Amino acid sequence: MNTLRTLSAALAVASMTSLAHAADPAYFTQTENMRMTRDANGVLLVEMNTNGGPFKFSAKAHEAFVDAFYHISRDRDNKIVILTGKGGQWMGDIDFASFGDVSDPDVWSKVHDEGTQIVENIANIRVPMICAVEGKAWVHTEYCALANVIVAGAGASFNDAPHFAGGIVPGDGIFTTWSYCMGPTRAEALLFDPKPFTAAQAKGYGLVSEVVPDGQAIAKAREIAARYLTKPEVTRRNTRTYFVQPIKLALVQQTGYGLSLEGASAADLVKSMKAAKQ
Amino acid sequence: MNTLRTLSAALAVASMTSLAHAADPAYFTQTENMRMTRDANGVLLVEMNTNGGPFKFSAKAHEAFVDAFYHISRDRDNKIVILTGKGGQWMGDIDFASFGDVSDPDVWSKVHDEGTQIVENIANIRVPMICAVEGKAWVHTEYCALANVIVAGAGASFNDAPHFAGGIVPGDGIFTTWSYCMGPTRAEALLFDPKPFTAAQAKGYGLVSEVVPDGQAIAKAREIAARYLTKPEVTRRNTRTYFVQPIKLALVQQTGYGLSLEGASAADLVKSMKAAKQ
Amino acid sequence: MNTLRTLSAALAVASMTSLAHAADPAYFTQTENMRMTRDANGVLLVEMNTNGGPFKFSAKAHEAFVDAFYHISRDRDNKIVILTGKGGQWMGDIDFASFGDVSDPDVWSKVHDEGTQIVENIANIRVPMICAVEGKAWVHTEYCALANVIVAGAGASFNDAPHFAGGIVPGDGIFTTWSYCMGPTRAEALLFDPKPFTAAQAKGYGLVSEVVPDGQAIAKAREIAARYLTKPEVTRRNTRTYFVQPIKLALVQQTGYGLSLEGASAADLVKSMKAAKQ
Amino acid sequence: MNTLRTLSAALAVASMTSLAHAADPAYFTQTENMRMTRDANGVLLVEMNTNGGPFKFSAKAHEAFVDAFYHISRDRDNKIVILTGKGGQWMGDIDFASFGDVSDPDVWSKVHDEGTQIVENIANIRVPMICAVEGKAWVHTEYCALANVIVAGAGASFNDAPHFAGGIVPGDGIFTTWSYCMGPTRAEALLFDPKPFTAAQAKGYGLVSEVVPDGQAIAKAREIAARYLTKPEVTRRNTRTYFVQPIKLALVQQTGYGLSLEGASAADLVKSMKAAKQ
Amino acid sequence: MNTLRTLSAALAVASMTSLAHAADPAYFTQTENMRMTRDANGVLLVEMNTNGGPFKFSAKAHEAFVDAFYHISRDRDNKIVILTGKGGQWMGDIDFASFGDVSDPDVWSKVHDEGTQIVENIANIRVPMICAVEGKAWVHTEYCALANVIVAGAGASFNDAPHFAGGIVPGDGIFTTWSYCMGPTRAEALLFDPKPFTAAQAKGYGLVSEVVPDGQAIAKAREIAARYLTKPEVTRRNTRTYFVQPIKLALVQQTGYGLSLEGASAADLVKSMKAAKQ
Amino acid sequence: MNTLRTLSAALAVASMTSLAHAADPAYFTQTENMRMTRDANGVLLVEMNTNGGPFKFSAKAHEAFVDAFYHISRDRDNKIVILTGKGGQWMGDIDFASFGDVSDPDVWSKVHDEGTQIVENIANIRVPMICAVEGKAWVHTEYCALANVIVAGAGASFNDAPHFAGGIVPGDGIFTTWSYCMGPTRAEALLFDPKPFTAAQAKGYGLVSEVVPDGQAIAKAREIAARYLTKPEVTRRNTRTYFVQPIKLALVQQTGYGLSLEGASAADLVKSMKAAKQ
Repeated sequence: MNTLRTLSAALAVASMTSLAHAADPAYFTQTENMRMTRDANGVLLVEMNTNGGPFKFSAKAHEAFVDAFYHISRDRDNKIVILTGKGGQWMGDIDFASFGDVSDPDVWSKVHDEGTQIVENIANIRVPMICAVEGKAWVHTEYCALANVIVAGAGASFNDAPHFAGGIVPGDGIFTTWSYCMGPTRAEALLFDPKPFTAAQAKGYGLVSEVVPDGQAIAKAREIAARYLTKPEVTRRNTRTYFVQPIKLALVQQTGYGLSLEGASAADLVKSMKAAKQ
Repeated sequence: MNTLRTLSAALAVASMTSLAHAADPAYFTQTENMRMTRDANGVLLVEMNTNGGPFKFSAKAHEAFVDAFYHISRDRDNKIVILTGKGGQWMGDIDFASFGDVSDPDVWSKVHDEGTQIVENIANIRVPMICAVEGKAWVHTEYCALANVIVAGAGASFNDAPHFAGGIVPGDGIFTTWSYCMGPTRAEALLFDPKPFTAAQAKGYGLVSEVVPDGQAIAKAREIAARYLTKPEVTRRNTRTYFVQPIKLALVQQTGYGLSLEGASAADLVKSMKAAKQ
Repeated sequence: MNTLRTLSAALAVASMTSLAHAADPAYFTQTENMRMTRDANGVLLVEMNTNGGPFKFSAKAHEAFVDAFYHISRDRDNKIVILTGKGGQWMGDIDFASFGDVSDPDVWSKVHDEGTQIVENIANIRVPMICAVEGKAWVHTEYCALANVIVAGAGASFNDAPHFAGGIVPGDGIFTTWSYCMGPTRAEALLFDPKPFTAAQAKGYGLVSEVVPDGQAIAKAREIAARYLTKPEVTRRNTRTYFVQPIKLALVQQTGYGLSLEGASAADLVKSMKAAKQ
Repeated sequence: MNTLRTLSAALAVASMTSLAHAADPAYFTQTENMRMTRDANGVLLVEMNTNGGPFKFSAKAHEAFVDAFYHISRDRDNKIVILTGKGGQWMGDIDFASFGDVSDPDVWSKVHDEGTQIVENIANIRVPMICAVEGKAWVHTEYCALANVIVAGAGASFNDAPHFAGGIVPGDGIFTTWSYCMGPTRAEALLFDPKPFTAAQAKGYGLVSEVVPDGQAIAKAREIAARYLTKPEVTRRNTRTYFVQPIKLALVQQTGYGLSLEGASAADLVKSMKAAKQ
Repeated sequence: MNTLRTLSAALAVASMTSLAHAADPAYFTQTENMRMTRDANGVLLVEMNTNGGPFKFSAKAHEAFVDAFYHISRDRDNKIVILTGKGGQWMGDIDFASFGDVSDPDVWSKVHDEGTQIVENIANIRVPMICAVEGKAWVHTEYCALANVIVAGAGASFNDAPHFAGGIVPGDGIFTTWSYCMGPTRAEALLFDPKPFTAAQAKGYGLVSEVVPDGQAIAKAREIAARYLTKPEVTRRNTRTYFVQPIKLALVQQTGYGLSLEGASAADLVKSMKAAKQ
Repeated sequence: MNTLRTLSAALAVASMTSLAHAADPAYFTQTENMRMTRDANGVLLVEMNTNGGPFKFSAKAHEAFVDAFYHISRDRDNKIVILTGKGGQWMGDIDFASFGDVSDPDVWSKVHDEGTQIVENIANIRVPMICAVEGKAWVHTEYCALANVIVAGAGASFNDAPHFAGGIVPGDGIFTTWSYCMGPTRAEALLFDPKPFTAAQAKGYGLVSEVVPDGQAIAKAREIAARYLTKPEVTRRNTRTYFVQPIKLALVQQTGYGLSLEGASAADLVKSMKAAKQ
């Protein structure tokens, strides 16, 4: 009898849970650093965050985002995807230590494999994608550059904080996407000598599509999304598929090598840091 | 006797016509929507028009232009090609209905085959090509973007009217050429949210080479043509051939797929319109 | 009481199963048409099947395999992947009707998106992949051709049953992979005039690496796997990554267009079948 | 009266001719060295010939074939194209002198432009293409290699007679297509040391699809054509379009450069011949 | 005795020279038109010059620079490379006559081979490369555009003086690099109608990274170099290697053909000049 | 006096040496492991050797061959290049230890840079290249595969001894060239499971062009060279340039990444060997 009761209770709970999130697929809640909500029209809002506040990138996120973007790409109930941050920041910081010993070939093999896969998975999101930037977009802005439209708050700033400044090659797709959006001269200059540039500059450079008052980026993104939704679904999906194809090909050609060269530079950095200690 | 007289008269007319246009090849007069005239230096002026006035694009033109551009490309007596409109407009309108039922696979097969061929044929024009824009360039501006130099009247405006606004994928070469000339961010933004932009903006974006007072675009084009003509013929031909090669390759790689994706979106549009009627 | 008993029994079975495969990730049991088992060395055996017998491909499998191959590719506990069939057949049949009305643009949009994704996901399996063929490999042999090594029983036969013979374009990656492995002349001839060819012929053509007695393909694959496992893990992963890169790039370039052209041909086939009925 | 009679007679002849070929488009009779006939099912037979006998290639044919293949490609009434020779030879000879002074940059500019265009025009034939070879295929076999299927009489032989043996670079598409069909090692060996190889060898090398008794190549081609015709039109067109895409891209990338390098070698050959005379 | 004395003196001089430049490799002094000096940190300064003054490009330099850039690229003691001119000019002039009869196929063969090799050799410099421009950069600015960063004095000007203005195709890498840095529209306009543009304009166009007061370009370049030197060596080498890869590939694909087309135009120019004389 | 005598003697020797090899450029004698001799017709014979006997590859040769092949490519007095071994072996062995600690990022950076450069330098040899194989070709056969023609003694054998068998990725160009010559299936099988294959097999696979009796490979190569020499120089140079272009492009695209992946695998191998020792 006890067994039966426990069993029934367990089944009831399971049923309630599925009632509570009737329409939400499992992956919505499986990525610690992503809050996903979808409105009735299928506009998926992805808010990158750390404990609900500004997002600090980490090795854990590096692994989890690969699958998160994959699930987003595979779910045909997503009609438009908006990628944004939380707590007034898009992505301002990174926890380097979380990656462990990047000179260990097994550690870097994982970074290489995840890094090549993540940009392909974003490119394979086959619905219009909008990036809404507030505050700092200083880390992994290639995720942002893979959107079709980038909306930025006036006070937003862009940068590539983790690579050359930190002593490693910007090899993870950031050069490929920045060069594609802003031209190679500008991309090389900004990556070799990284310092923040404003939303207005980013618009002038060709990275940002629209600058709005601070705090309005998501609202603007939803406005754009609503306009897209007046078109047939196949039109929306195929337009994204067609537009993303050249940069997807470039990423497939370049990112694996870039991450390998970055891995070698990371090993050299560790080596030189060890040497400096002695 | 009557027969004889009629016959003689007909022959006389034919003879006079051929006298009047002694040097003109047959294709000059075979395309209803193109008026072609060539000066003594071999500068071919192609004026797209409908009954002598502003040109309204149609399925008939879609088919005829494929061959027209081919003949232009093959005629070594053409030393420079100037592509322009008539009646103060480059190309402002399109007759969608003329294409018939675009959800019929046989109808779209023709659109696909002609659409991939037309941009290749323009790319294969192996002499310098100048596009002279007055008024609206709202339709098929990829023909324009395949010129080496684009001269626009100050009041000219550019747009992609027929695709996303109409509910179909901009898959016919317009994304490929706009992305090549203006960068992908700008191209995507303008194609996803189509609205006219001015000649001055177009110059700032990198599409237009020179802005002149309204009505002066052809004159300016002729001036540029005259300058090119001072160089040896092989130099002119080979410079065009060399400059056009990267965009030609991109078109060969991308346009077939783009038109296929556009065809699927057109079928979906028809489907959703039929559903809306019920 | 009966209900309770049935329930308990079901739970017990579930529990035993999960005990028996304590270390098995969830995706092992989530794909109806794939039985996955992994030995202590990380050799994953994927047996495609329908109810435990010979596998008949279907729309359901088309959707499920996309994710199945993705999960396989992402799981670093897989050290080698062996892909095979069940019941003496690799893949001999297809349930066309399960795909529904392939002339409906929404139906084909799903086929297109899944079809481009599935070959990319197989290509992204970053450990050596071995295909073990017994019996008929008449459907979707591009999955097989994406392995590094193909072992076939002497009585195995290869074919492309579903495309040109059925009246549609072989656009889903089969031309790309067959052309890559067997040369374009042979691939075109075999796809334009599909009929079975033997394992020995397939070896002569360059598709099959090794022919073994019937029933020995999996054993041979395990033998090869054991040899690979003597090398360091990064060596195994990176060798696969490097070898697969050219064909992965070709698939990314060609498969989307191929599936679009195939979709148009499917719509024309449906149209002509409807016309024939009247 | 005499004038009248001559005129009437001429008109009668013209009328009869046009009656006899009521459905034949103008281009059928515009190429001196091509006899074109089309059966009721749309199978176009193109017989290359010189005065109805074995075809000897010439500068005139080089120019005329460009347009001939274009017209063939553009005519949607052609459902299948069979390319063959006449008088028991596919193409066995070439009239070098007809090209004039190939060291003259204006002469070679024409060769370059026609040569790049001709292979693109053949690649753009968007229906299945079959090459039927009898006798010598010693010149311009890249036209043949661009077919989907090559049928050869048992006594047929293949060669590249005009290039390295004659002292010039095989730069006109022959290396690109031979390398594609037979592999680069074999292509280089055969082009650097040109000598005839048999139909059987050509089949072993991967160039020829089927060998038939002498005199049966066209019949076999018609048999294959009949089989293709049982499939829907869009299927036939799109399969060709898809299959030809990789080699078309290779030709667009390589042929212009190849012909330029060939032109320079021709100029050097002329120079060395002049030097030898002195 | 005299012999002995002369000998001793010669040896002493040789010894002193080698003492003075103890660490300098042989190639430092083997290129007449390049002065090379390297500081203690491995920053190599390459000053192109003619007799210590402004550099006038010549056939001799064309040949010598190929090897000079190769040696620079191969010497791992070079940590950063700064390319500049001398006498207040980067490269303002060219000695056309030094190339001899460019319509001679043997002469142009050398130009073609050196021209394709030189841009590859610069691209293969696997350390950060900075171009410091003062005065005129009117000739071979593709060497400059292959740097990662271009610093220009305010009074510097850019142009492509030798090609279309002189009647030949800009086929030596200048279109490829200008199009890459400044976009194709701008590149084509500037190359078809060459006239000097200022350093400020060049910055707006995306060619120049930084404008400094006249005479400060080298100092600024050294400042940038010092900043780069704070990063690990593998990071510096691999960042350059990664960044240069797309333009290197484009050059390998395009430059040979470009130089061939340029050679044909040069032959036509010579022909037309000879004709004009008669 | 003693000094004088020594000096004179030294000068005399130097003078005699330079007399004996009056026409020989300096690089002929600068590569310890290559003996270079050139006949009166410009046929350069390059014999790889260790102390005059069978050649054992080493880190020193890896560095020196980069420059050796470059000098060979740049010397227009070389009309044909024959690459062979010495002592009855092409290249049968490798001294792994000479490379030092391949898990050190600075060590591998050098391997990566040299390895990408060496295959480009061989590809840039712009005259016909013939590889003459006797005995074992077990190491770096990509140098051989980059020849236009490979002649092998009947007893020669081919293999890839140093990579997968040794626990590292075959990433240095061997997969790219083997896949190009023998097809990817065969290349992958042979590289994943390396064991020697005979000259006859190599011919069947498409790697070897001609098999001759043992000891006759060089003689045969000279015979072929003599035949080539009857053609104009530009023809010979341009044919090589044209034929090598596709594989050169593939090497530029793939080798850097391949060597990076190989470097990571080498680091993992060292790591696992260290772990095994503990």
